[in-house]
Amino acid sequence: MSLNLPATEDVFSAAQRIAPFVHETPLMTSERLSDLAGAELYFKCEHLQKVGAFKARGAVNAVLQLPPEQKLVATHSSGNHGAALAWAAAASGRESIVVMPENAPAVKKAAVAGYGAKVVECGPTLANREAALADVVSETGAHVVPPYDDPRIIAGQGTVGVELVRQCRERGFVPDLVVAPIGGGGLLAGTGLALRGLLPECKLIGAEPAGAADAHLSLRSGVRRTDVVSNTIADGLRTTIGERNFAVVRDTVQDIVTVSEDGIRDAMHLIWSRMKQLVEPSAAVSLAGVFEHASRFRGKKVVLVLSGGNVDMPAPA
Amino acid sequence: MSLNLPATEDVFSAAQRIAPFVHETPLMTSERLSDLAGAELYFKCEHLQKVGAFKARGAVNAVLQLPPEQKLVATHSSGNHGAALAWAAAASGRESIVVMPENAPAVKKAAVAGYGAKVVECGPTLANREAALADVVSETGAHVVPPYDDPRIIAGQGTVGVELVRQCRERGFVPDLVVAPIGGGGLLAGTGLALRGLLPECKLIGAEPAGAADAHLSLRSGVRRTDVVSNTIADGLRTTIGERNFAVVRDTVQDIVTVSEDGIRDAMHLIWSRMKQLVEPSAAVSLAGVFEHASRFRGKKVVLVLSGGNVDMPAPA
Repeated sequence: MSLNLPATEDVFSAAQRIAPFVHETPLMTSERLSDLAGAELYFKCEHLQKVGAFKARGAVNAVLQLPPEQKLVATHSSGNHGAALAWAAAASGRESIVVMPENAPAVKKAAVAGYGAKVVECGPTLANREAALADVVSETGAHVVPPYDDPRIIAGQGTVGVELVRQCRERGFVPDLVVAPIGGGGLLAGTGLALRGLLPECKLIGAEPAGAADAHLSLRSGVRRTDVVSNTIADGLRTTIGERNFAVVRDTVQDIVTVSEDGIRDAMHLIWSRMKQLVEPSAAVSLAGVFEHASRFRGKKVVLVLSGGNVDMPAPA
Repeated sequence: MSLNLPATEDVFSAAQRIAPFVHETPLMTSERLSDLAGAELYFKCEHLQKVGAFKARGAVNAVLQLPPEQKLVATHSSGNHGAALAWAAAASGRESIVVMPENAPAVKKAAVAGYGAKVVECGPTLANREAALADVVSETGAHVVPPYDDPRIIAGQGTVGVELVRQCRERGFVPDLVVAPIGGGGLLAGTGLALRGLLPECKLIGAEPAGAADAHLSLRSGVRRTDVVSNTIADGLRTTIGERNFAVVRDTVQDIVTVSEDGIRDAMHLIWSRMKQLVEPSAAVSLAGVFEHASRFRGKKVVLVLSGGNVDMPAPA
């Protein structure tokens, strides 16, 4: 089987294509967190991206390549990709339908609808979602934009890597390592392509919950694992690594480290309390990785991708 | 009685003095919140300041003017000023003692101790605090740095105004209005001095909880009110406006608007969910003021000071 894999040039093209639509997100520092880690930490703030997650990049990169007459897009998503596609569709004058499991976080369902999508609810399994999406497509002729296993999505997410390399250079330093969370693998694969082209001496590390370690196990065994049951607070990372994503990750990533659930919670709370940045559990997985594998990062310049900020916050008392 | 009042030049001197110690905090925007307000909103992010609040500015401005042999400073504070003084003392090689009410938020007590202060607990009333602080001073000879009614503190907090004017100019616009919360009045008075010197055409509005409206009532009547009972979620704004603060505010502030408790909660939740910035209730009072007095701000360029981010967040589930 031949996979249509994106290349570094596709990431560069994506960066130009999407620039008018997305934010250049800031690279923040925190003395306290750097001290705790014993490393020089830089946080790439994709929770401040449009729709509150890096997913806006891939979604708008995909939608902008559609023919003008394709006016309806659809996907299934438990969260940020759905919001991203709804936003990207609206930004390019299109309509969208998003299939979501009934048990998705309320804040994410509200966001998707708020960006103008029609939300179609379905059961909690992947099979439920795929069946519901197939129904939508057959009824409406919508073009499906998948959440991660798609060359346009991978290239779009990779623009995070292009941006962070430029920001590091503007500040006069070269990062030793970049750490990004991995769920489906769009962000990690795309960032890998960007770094390979721009900064091959910089190592890329994926961070994954031990409770959803399919990518870690796949990389170790060399074969994509689709049989791993996921159980983690990091709801954005419960998905299985995609085929294209795995093919790219295998070639561009140095390692995928796993982190504990307590480590994710502690890291999230530190980002909240020390940096005053509201990130979602999935975003905290990068920092958890730095703490739980400290010896690999000590003394290094490390860029951590804070992937998203869409978390249900309790109403203030 | 003659009050030692700070002048605009003191704010400029403070800006130079404290620059090596404090952050230049970013000026953020949010399309969603600007749309909601029908105004062009810019948020001066003092929750990203050292110790998570603008209070770092005044505290370090005061401590840096002490003679080198004065090695011990003290104050009473329910929160951010205590942390700020503890940090400022440590930053200048001094020791600190902070008198805090037993019922102060846990996150604030922990922060004060974490910055190296000795914490002395006392009862909840102002009289309790003052008595405990007097004991500390007579026992130790500590120099007292008050939280707001002090020319060094007012001048230090006013550096927020110096910075935001420069940042607006760098971005090529002139703000029509600046909105800042008022508790004791250090931030508002200092900002008033800065604006009077740098941008007299820009109006300054104080925002105050209706449940702690002493400054509003004082400004309306022309006489400082010290008899107003405060009851508000915005714990940083429960204090009574200081004498020096009132004297400066009267001359430099266009108005003080009041906001409801629901308005504060809603504004805080919007800043959390839309901007992904963890601000404390007191910081949200500026935005609540813009929403609850919308006609005064509609169509204008408005800078809102987000004064602090020290809020007890529940541990993630």
